[in-house]
Amino acid sequence: MQDFIFESRTRIVFGRGTENRVGEETARFAKRVLLHHSGGHVVSSGLLDLVKERLAEAGVGWVELSGVKPNPRLSLVRTGIELCRRERIDFILAVGGGSVIDSAKGIAVGLPYQGDVWDFYDAKLAPQTAARVATVLTIPATGSEASNSSVLTNEDGPWKRGLNAECLRPVFSILDPELTFSLPPYQTACGIADMLAHIMERYFTAVPHVELTDRLCEAAMKTIVRNARPVMEDGDDYDARAELMWAATLAHNDLLGTGRAGDWASHRIEHELSALYDIAHGAGLAAVFPAWIEYNLDRDVRRFARFASEVWGVDGAEYDPEQAAREGVARLKAFYRAIGLPASLEEADVPLDRVREMAERAVVKGPLGSFRKLAASDVEAILRIAARPRA
Amino acid sequence: MQDFIFESRTRIVFGRGTENRVGEETARFAKRVLLHHSGGHVVSSGLLDLVKERLAEAGVGWVELSGVKPNPRLSLVRTGIELCRRERIDFILAVGGGSVIDSAKGIAVGLPYQGDVWDFYDAKLAPQTAARVATVLTIPATGSEASNSSVLTNEDGPWKRGLNAECLRPVFSILDPELTFSLPPYQTACGIADMLAHIMERYFTAVPHVELTDRLCEAAMKTIVRNARPVMEDGDDYDARAELMWAATLAHNDLLGTGRAGDWASHRIEHELSALYDIAHGAGLAAVFPAWIEYNLDRDVRRFARFASEVWGVDGAEYDPEQAAREGVARLKAFYRAIGLPASLEEADVPLDRVREMAERAVVKGPLGSFRKLAASDVEAILRIAARPRA
Repeated sequence: MQDFIFESRTRIVFGRGTENRVGEETARFAKRVLLHHSGGHVVSSGLLDLVKERLAEAGVGWVELSGVKPNPRLSLVRTGIELCRRERIDFILAVGGGSVIDSAKGIAVGLPYQGDVWDFYDAKLAPQTAARVATVLTIPATGSEASNSSVLTNEDGPWKRGLNAECLRPVFSILDPELTFSLPPYQTACGIADMLAHIMERYFTAVPHVELTDRLCEAAMKTIVRNARPVMEDGDDYDARAELMWAATLAHNDLLGTGRAGDWASHRIEHELSALYDIAHGAGLAAVFPAWIEYNLDRDVRRFARFASEVWGVDGAEYDPEQAAREGVARLKAFYRAIGLPASLEEADVPLDRVREMAERAVVKGPLGSFRKLAASDVEAILRIAARPRA
Repeated sequence: MQDFIFESRTRIVFGRGTENRVGEETARFAKRVLLHHSGGHVVSSGLLDLVKERLAEAGVGWVELSGVKPNPRLSLVRTGIELCRRERIDFILAVGGGSVIDSAKGIAVGLPYQGDVWDFYDAKLAPQTAARVATVLTIPATGSEASNSSVLTNEDGPWKRGLNAECLRPVFSILDPELTFSLPPYQTACGIADMLAHIMERYFTAVPHVELTDRLCEAAMKTIVRNARPVMEDGDDYDARAELMWAATLAHNDLLGTGRAGDWASHRIEHELSALYDIAHGAGLAAVFPAWIEYNLDRDVRRFARFASEVWGVDGAEYDPEQAAREGVARLKAFYRAIGLPASLEEADVPLDRVREMAERAVVKGPLGSFRKLAASDVEAILRIAARPRA
């Protein structure tokens, strides 16, 4: 086990109707907030109006900034920073999914900084402070509601970059599984792929003696896999929606990574897919992660065999670990396909003509991963495995 | 799943040599602290001197209060409150195990209160505020290093009472598994029984649809059970000590109870044992918990069968759940005995002449438990089952 610091301070308010508490929760921190969202469903569903009502009742005012897109854009973050400065606001309430929350975090971290907020995402310097962020979550997926991370896309490039800093952790997040009933199947599935990937990135570690967190990871992965089908079949299944929502948060609040080194190469590779083709993050992960496993199988075949056995119920891992590990990859791909996601680049409509370019872009800041360090040639090889539609 | 609020703000600094960071961590909060400990091993091992050195280097002064006993006493807490008031101190640094931390929390919560601190423990009112507490942990057991609870013994009675309040959660806790190398086997075993019991209290719930936390509980219980033997055989096994130390914290920081109703009857019954006979909490739990399970088997035999199967590897739970559940209880008792703990009242040297009195004292604030509500007659029946040495 590695030494670690664990500090996950976000207050989680979980359950039916908890969005009604947004006023009192916010009033503990601010009298006036930036209300940040994507427009669309949060408006048409009435959620935004309810949030405004509760804020008003609690004596909290707001300025609104709508228009967040999936793969949230740096340009809107810059607009938000200007708006908050002009309006003297230093609390951002994100109502939506991971894109809205990540955009809110971008605004929060750029607000007290005199330079360009992209400096942080481009790893030129580490932020020490940020305005406060809180969330009313509508999509269980990114875990951004309790994580210290934010991912933005800079349209000049385009570059998709992630930032991790403790000051980015929301002060509270409201999680009502009923708000996710209306999520379309494809978005539900992308969320499932994303939360599962957050655990796999931590689970596939080269650090030995991580017994407790191995089992905690397996517990969360099993729960996600076994509640995916109920939710795909009946979007209004509260119990299954609740399991997925809580699992998504725990997948990425750092608990499951304590004492371990995460890998994150698959995420970095996926960022290149999203940057060039603007595909949904979860779908990109489904297309890439199985290939990453296949490419790295020989690095620690017993870990992948255990993954197959514990998460996918594959038998015989103790007799033929490689065979079990390969069966695990096959079941992972079958799972993605069963919930309507692509399990290869072709299924994701990603052409192969820019594979080398993506590989080179992925390693522009240095080799990827910690389970095995990956150079551009490794990334290219992974993308070529991912290209095989039925491999 | 029940609605819940989860907020576990304690900063955990985990790993080898982390006690050297106590100065910088403390200096973020206070310039002068109450240094609270039990004397004895923390002094002779040199840990206390090291802590003082690091505090001094960080410019933090201290006033010392030693003498905490197992089942920490109200009288010393009162002394600490007076001392802090006189010295104008509002930060308590606990160096030691759960007793020292609980005593520190008692001082912290009594400090801003004009009345008698026992009012809180006697449930006369709920505390809204407390001085800050931080810890350098030496015994993985109670989970008090990241919990919102404190248990004190009032010598007038004697009464042993627990208090839960968010303001009691330490601001930081330093966990170095190497500090636990020198723990004697009996204390190690008592700690193991305590952490296991904290999970069992949450695991045996009547709340349905708690799939994720069921699995997380099982993951933690398995890890505790499987690392107990290595640690009993070789106290210097860093990896096993580290697994137990992190498991003990997660067992009681409320994560594993999210969405569930805990039972806590066994803890309340044990408190009567400790109050009257001053036996170690972990030993008392080992003597009582198997009897609680046996008495409640018919309430939800499948849950106990699952416990047997998942934690103890008992086969056949799907064919004969009752038989499997009983085998689970037998293995739990065998486990306690294997690590040197009593698995019955007789083995704990608790005579039977005050069983009725203990049962009546246990329910003086109302029936116990949530898995099944227990009246005095139920508690007496459980204690009589616990009295059977080889049942």
